[in-house]
Amino acid sequence: MIKAGILGATGAVGQRFVQLLADHPWFEITALAASERSAGKKYGEVAKWRLDTDLPENVRDITVVSTKPKEVDADIVFSALPAEDAITIEKDFAKAGFVVSSNASSHRMEKDIPLLIPEVNPEHLALIDVQKKKRKWDGCIVTNPNCSTIMMVLTLKPLMKFGIENIHVATMQAVSGAGYEGVSSMAIMDNVIPYIGGEEHKMETETQKLLGTFDGKIVKDAPFWVSAACHRVPVMDGHTMSVWMRSKKNPTPEQVKNAFLKFDPKLGDLPTSPKKAIIVREEPDRPQPRMDRNQGRGMSVSVGRIRAGADNAVQYVCMGHNTVRGAAGASILNAEVLKKKGYL
Amino acid sequence: MIKAGILGATGAVGQRFVQLLADHPWFEITALAASERSAGKKYGEVAKWRLDTDLPENVRDITVVSTKPKEVDADIVFSALPAEDAITIEKDFAKAGFVVSSNASSHRMEKDIPLLIPEVNPEHLALIDVQKKKRKWDGCIVTNPNCSTIMMVLTLKPLMKFGIENIHVATMQAVSGAGYEGVSSMAIMDNVIPYIGGEEHKMETETQKLLGTFDGKIVKDAPFWVSAACHRVPVMDGHTMSVWMRSKKNPTPEQVKNAFLKFDPKLGDLPTSPKKAIIVREEPDRPQPRMDRNQGRGMSVSVGRIRAGADNAVQYVCMGHNTVRGAAGASILNAEVLKKKGYL
Amino acid sequence: MIKAGILGATGAVGQRFVQLLADHPWFEITALAASERSAGKKYGEVAKWRLDTDLPENVRDITVVSTKPKEVDADIVFSALPAEDAITIEKDFAKAGFVVSSNASSHRMEKDIPLLIPEVNPEHLALIDVQKKKRKWDGCIVTNPNCSTIMMVLTLKPLMKFGIENIHVATMQAVSGAGYEGVSSMAIMDNVIPYIGGEEHKMETETQKLLGTFDGKIVKDAPFWVSAACHRVPVMDGHTMSVWMRSKKNPTPEQVKNAFLKFDPKLGDLPTSPKKAIIVREEPDRPQPRMDRNQGRGMSVSVGRIRAGADNAVQYVCMGHNTVRGAAGASILNAEVLKKKGYL
Amino acid sequence: MIKAGILGATGAVGQRFVQLLADHPWFEITALAASERSAGKKYGEVAKWRLDTDLPENVRDITVVSTKPKEVDADIVFSALPAEDAITIEKDFAKAGFVVSSNASSHRMEKDIPLLIPEVNPEHLALIDVQKKKRKWDGCIVTNPNCSTIMMVLTLKPLMKFGIENIHVATMQAVSGAGYEGVSSMAIMDNVIPYIGGEEHKMETETQKLLGTFDGKIVKDAPFWVSAACHRVPVMDGHTMSVWMRSKKNPTPEQVKNAFLKFDPKLGDLPTSPKKAIIVREEPDRPQPRMDRNQGRGMSVSVGRIRAGADNAVQYVCMGHNTVRGAAGASILNAEVLKKKGYL
Repeated sequence: MIKAGILGATGAVGQRFVQLLADHPWFEITALAASERSAGKKYGEVAKWRLDTDLPENVRDITVVSTKPKEVDADIVFSALPAEDAITIEKDFAKAGFVVSSNASSHRMEKDIPLLIPEVNPEHLALIDVQKKKRKWDGCIVTNPNCSTIMMVLTLKPLMKFGIENIHVATMQAVSGAGYEGVSSMAIMDNVIPYIGGEEHKMETETQKLLGTFDGKIVKDAPFWVSAACHRVPVMDGHTMSVWMRSKKNPTPEQVKNAFLKFDPKLGDLPTSPKKAIIVREEPDRPQPRMDRNQGRGMSVSVGRIRAGADNAVQYVCMGHNTVRGAAGASILNAEVLKKKGYL
Repeated sequence: MIKAGILGATGAVGQRFVQLLADHPWFEITALAASERSAGKKYGEVAKWRLDTDLPENVRDITVVSTKPKEVDADIVFSALPAEDAITIEKDFAKAGFVVSSNASSHRMEKDIPLLIPEVNPEHLALIDVQKKKRKWDGCIVTNPNCSTIMMVLTLKPLMKFGIENIHVATMQAVSGAGYEGVSSMAIMDNVIPYIGGEEHKMETETQKLLGTFDGKIVKDAPFWVSAACHRVPVMDGHTMSVWMRSKKNPTPEQVKNAFLKFDPKLGDLPTSPKKAIIVREEPDRPQPRMDRNQGRGMSVSVGRIRAGADNAVQYVCMGHNTVRGAAGASILNAEVLKKKGYL
Repeated sequence: MIKAGILGATGAVGQRFVQLLADHPWFEITALAASERSAGKKYGEVAKWRLDTDLPENVRDITVVSTKPKEVDADIVFSALPAEDAITIEKDFAKAGFVVSSNASSHRMEKDIPLLIPEVNPEHLALIDVQKKKRKWDGCIVTNPNCSTIMMVLTLKPLMKFGIENIHVATMQAVSGAGYEGVSSMAIMDNVIPYIGGEEHKMETETQKLLGTFDGKIVKDAPFWVSAACHRVPVMDGHTMSVWMRSKKNPTPEQVKNAFLKFDPKLGDLPTSPKKAIIVREEPDRPQPRMDRNQGRGMSVSVGRIRAGADNAVQYVCMGHNTVRGAAGASILNAEVLKKKGYL
Repeated sequence: MIKAGILGATGAVGQRFVQLLADHPWFEITALAASERSAGKKYGEVAKWRLDTDLPENVRDITVVSTKPKEVDADIVFSALPAEDAITIEKDFAKAGFVVSSNASSHRMEKDIPLLIPEVNPEHLALIDVQKKKRKWDGCIVTNPNCSTIMMVLTLKPLMKFGIENIHVATMQAVSGAGYEGVSSMAIMDNVIPYIGGEEHKMETETQKLLGTFDGKIVKDAPFWVSAACHRVPVMDGHTMSVWMRSKKNPTPEQVKNAFLKFDPKLGDLPTSPKKAIIVREEPDRPQPRMDRNQGRGMSVSVGRIRAGADNAVQYVCMGHNTVRGAAGASILNAEVLKKKGYL
């Protein structure tokens, strides 16, 4: 078993890491790190557990440590740190020799740090060598994208062959994306909030890095623009996205659907990879977050309503579980690929 | 006082007509018409009243009649009929000499029937003369647009001067748009439904008629396309729309904002017209349905988040009350303009 | 494998039966019966599937039959029929030799028909012999209680030893209890409906039969009264109940808690019986429907907030999954006991 | 005009005070006090306004002061302070000569401080004289009850003549009762939380003081007990309560209903007092928070489902707007009575 630590273990994404790693066949939770306030106490006491499965028994009595490399006994650390903490702490861990699989946004856009979706751009992992060499680190940092970006980009990957020219996307995002205390009930009940700070910029820029070309040294941005409009809706889990895709080859909706159906990322049989990365729904009113978010144990993205838009665009809707595929599950899948490729 | 009847008086939009007309300074409810099942009974008995103000006392004891012209004592009828009934009944009333102000979709796209938003295309009212002449009717039919179309088109009107080239719009629509029994709680709680039958087509085609040019005989479609994606969200009232507007003159967000601020439809002081047809919100996270839907007694459309999009588009969000500005209130405002212009 | 039919297979509870029986180790779905309208068509075509797991593949292509005994090839039928249909159809099946395990309310209070919760009153099953003899049936009918009754009575069973004198109970019930189209979103969003037709009467009378004494011929009502107040709240699944229990022996909250903890119904290892019928939560704010409804695969009832009430009552809150433990799961567990005891 | 200050003006209840006082015919807002953090800044800048009417123009530019008597220019101060601050600050203001009309819980149960509902116990106002004498204060403190208590006690007042023996009450409370950030959306969406800290104790004890007898010196508790169970539900505004009332005279539901209908608190025509303090609903499924919370501009309590319970109890449901009648509106009505009775 590979020894795994979790940084920011008490928060919403941290708890999801604990839940998903509790029975993981490759990783064993050996360290739970959180703020000084929690350090020294048992996890079961400091983590106000909010998932609808019980706190795993074997985790309850682990003593929380602080987020310092010397306190953490692990080979890999999963980071659920807030961005403002991750910016220094993750580097400290990489310098100290840890593999850091991060869900934080802090390092995603750094030129020598891979922003990874295993089904989309596994070749970008080679940036790790660039990174280690340049920074003289024993360890490394690998990041996963923003929760909205990841759902959309998974569906864009099989459409790259059509010569994407531009993307318009409107999101309808779940409250869990903001963390447990992130959205008050008075703010969102019977309401839509047409603003999520920084989210549109992340979708627009991360997509270009993810679908960009790695030339052995750097990743060149994908040659199309994305224009995003992000909204919060009264949904617990599951981000829904309405996409317009315009491309050089003007595929029919049927051709786009077939591209989704035939998409095979050839990941092999990893513990966290879903049987199907993309599930195509035929019903006129799907995907829906409440119905489809748990597909593939939360790791599949569902698409539907593939139809012809104006001006040769193809429109469709995609949806995935934002705290599984869009956060903790993404980091774990990244780690599994790291292991498989020998980086761990 | 002008004698007013309501067709389809017991349903959700019918009740909204009753509520809004109860204290109207120009119109007096003289007839409530509904299906044969309800005819002959008192309105208070057959209408399961669902608005959060009490059923007006002066309406409770009115005996409901059937939707036949000879049963209805009125100068104008407001139609909240379902489309499949409206298609014949509204014509019967027009033929019988009534002015029909309709919220139904049945006749909106007929070439000689005005599709009207008073602040947008009052000159289209002259179609009434074409209509009467051609059909040899004493009365006439005037329609208001679909609830989603109306909010968006109100905000597009002041942007016409920039030479609109195309519109992408994603909607997040309230459940009341589907009528009281239209959306079950199990369907929409904790969920998004990315499909509303026929809605996208209505937004795409009605917009072109509304913003088209009347040449004295017919309305020529506006010279740009609209591409819509419609979604239902767990909101009671208030349709929110995320808009991308691309135009020849590439205005800055500031110029777009000023166009909204300066928009003056010169309607004069009608009982139902709001002080401001368009309200510009400066906060980064507005408009929101729960906060802004009752602005201008439900007749104002609120806009916000005006920003630069990719490829010279301007993005913004607009929102309005779908059963007031988007339905009953729209028909009543149309009727007020009919009266003012001498058609009633 | 025992051949199992489902009556009323297309509705909300019917779908739950299909979901729970699809992989059942003892029962095999051999017939799906529904109204004449659906008969002759494939289940996958007529059942608008609304659960968040996919429609089981092996069920999709079964041809639906009508609810007539000669059409149904099965040893046992599970009834999810509406009460007005169940009243005759279930008798037809029992007469024709089927074992009928019913979730309908029609026959629950008939003197010779068992109203069964296996953990509570398994000795009432002997009523089957009374029933068969009296009615000269080859088959029989066994019923499970109303969804609210069942959660409360499970928790009352271990408290019987304290000499219960009376129960006050206020329920907060999920929308799924009313079926898929039962509660419109406009009725319940941002709302509480303090009325569920017939529910209070069911809780008050069914409890007395369930906890009554079987003397070999009839069941004598339990010697205490129940006073119920039922409310619908905006929750998808999971009925929450606030209980005041007054008893002769005035136990302390600690004694009541211990009675819950020690409760062992000695059901043995049935496929559907949960490891713990009653789960005691220690947190001050549990049980909660969203967090606890899936405990024991939806078959456990969770209790908490056990505290001293005024006038020597003990107060507590209990909660369980209304369409699993409170409906389809209850009928299936009943059937498992029937099998184990040799009635099937 | 009487000069009015608001303590804790930026929070949820503070904003409600601002909204309700903005057009008040007797009171003029002359001071807005909040924490040191906000002091010195304009109200429009520091108060994140969350009500669905716009921030009143005449308040936007008022400079916020700190919560010290010498900073506040007013004859009366309305307190929306948190309990931990109110305990000292309100006394400072009373000592300094201000009339303090408080919504905080800190001083409600002090023997010489009136806990007031004008329609229920106006005679308790004479405690002010006891208070001033004992404490040697120029000013005084008057409090209003907890938001749940106030709805229930208003309905109990006309039932006192039946000789109430005990009350069981289960509440279903809105999220706004906990303040804007009080309940996270992840905590309450699709959920019930069966716990509100301190709430049950408040309902049980405040009721006895409110309905107790003032003998010229102290208030003697009412001679019956209340047993409360409090729950949070996904409702924005409006607390719903299910009540069992047992009394010596065993009135019929009809007699109880008549007592409600005839209830006339003889308050006279105060600006904030509703035309009817108690509104009786005849529909089987009312009152409902979404439908009835704004009755009497939020100051009426609606009752319904009056029915016979077991053991001679009468059951009914009552509901009122928790941040209007249950908080800011209550303090303002108290102040109006103070003015009318010459204490201001």
